[in-house]
Amino acid sequence: MKVLCLDLEGVLVPEIWHGIARATGIEILNKTTRDIPVYEDLMRLRLDTIERHAVTLGTIRRAIADLDPLPGADRFLAWAHRRFQVAILSDTFYEFAMPLMAKLGFPLLLCHRLVVEGDRIVDYRLRQEQAKAAAVRAFQALEYEVVAVGDSYNDIDMLLAADRACFFRAPDRVADAHRDIPRFETYDELRGAL
Amino acid sequence: MKVLCLDLEGVLVPEIWHGIARATGIEILNKTTRDIPVYEDLMRLRLDTIERHAVTLGTIRRAIADLDPLPGADRFLAWAHRRFQVAILSDTFYEFAMPLMAKLGFPLLLCHRLVVEGDRIVDYRLRQEQAKAAAVRAFQALEYEVVAVGDSYNDIDMLLAADRACFFRAPDRVADAHRDIPRFETYDELRGAL
Repeated sequence: MKVLCLDLEGVLVPEIWHGIARATGIEILNKTTRDIPVYEDLMRLRLDTIERHAVTLGTIRRAIADLDPLPGADRFLAWAHRRFQVAILSDTFYEFAMPLMAKLGFPLLLCHRLVVEGDRIVDYRLRQEQAKAAAVRAFQALEYEVVAVGDSYNDIDMLLAADRACFFRAPDRVADAHRDIPRFETYDELRGAL
Repeated sequence: MKVLCLDLEGVLVPEIWHGIARATGIEILNKTTRDIPVYEDLMRLRLDTIERHAVTLGTIRRAIADLDPLPGADRFLAWAHRRFQVAILSDTFYEFAMPLMAKLGFPLLLCHRLVVEGDRIVDYRLRQEQAKAAAVRAFQALEYEVVAVGDSYNDIDMLLAADRACFFRAPDRVADAHRDIPRFETYDELRGAL
């Protein structure tokens, strides 16, 4: 039995901040770790932007409630649950992700927390540095082999820490920097490789 | 967000070996960690017994397929998934537990493996020593507070390692040795305490 560590956004669900950008009409919120590799820089930009536009947590939650898992993600996850123990390792926040986790049947999610005052997001708290790689190493310390699947810069530490790694729908500039990690574009291809 | 670590047998599903005892008519297989606190002694007795009676893995799997989660376990787990990240820490084996995990919606299960030759169980492999406590500490190392729920001797290390611990339907002789750990008999009581 191996542990399958999956990134959330881009692998099982759409990019959450794209949904927020669409709902609020704020174009700059479309940027992701694919555009700004340093997560702290990206989050500072996002929080400054929603502060400036007075976007509330309630507004964001309503935007996220309209999101659905990617087509085929349910079936892929059902397949994975029968062959692996599944853990979702994400740099999102519980306050955002829980409605999506409900739609995925509540697999284990290890991610971060927001700091909220009333209906205002005032800050965020990373659970720890390199949280995804730390989670991979924790499962390895529990004597599991870990297979990891991700798509972006913030997955690289997880992919390098894992015993086996796959890119799923990674942009060229991410995948080209790590050509030893195989790339897959469909769930069928990914299933075949796992 | 906290991690809720739940024992499996006695907490969410019936004792698997009781089901095997019932299906095979072998009375001695009713013994559990509640009767024989040293897990290795108990497993040696079980494996010697099924070897002597030529009980196959197939027979055992059919017995387990007839088991269902405890009444109310589904609802309790659905409640828990919305408030915690849930991990099942068990001393059972993936080869036994997977049909029951399917009935529980595949929460993360950390347990052990059997050594199987053909349809014969020839041995078992503990994932590591004190596997339940090690899993609790792994989540703590990932900066999670851990709440643990168990019922028997093999849960004590997990309960003592956790930030908060509860007994669920523990026999008196287990609970009386650890009077600082609160005891609950129904899922409603447990929900109220968590």
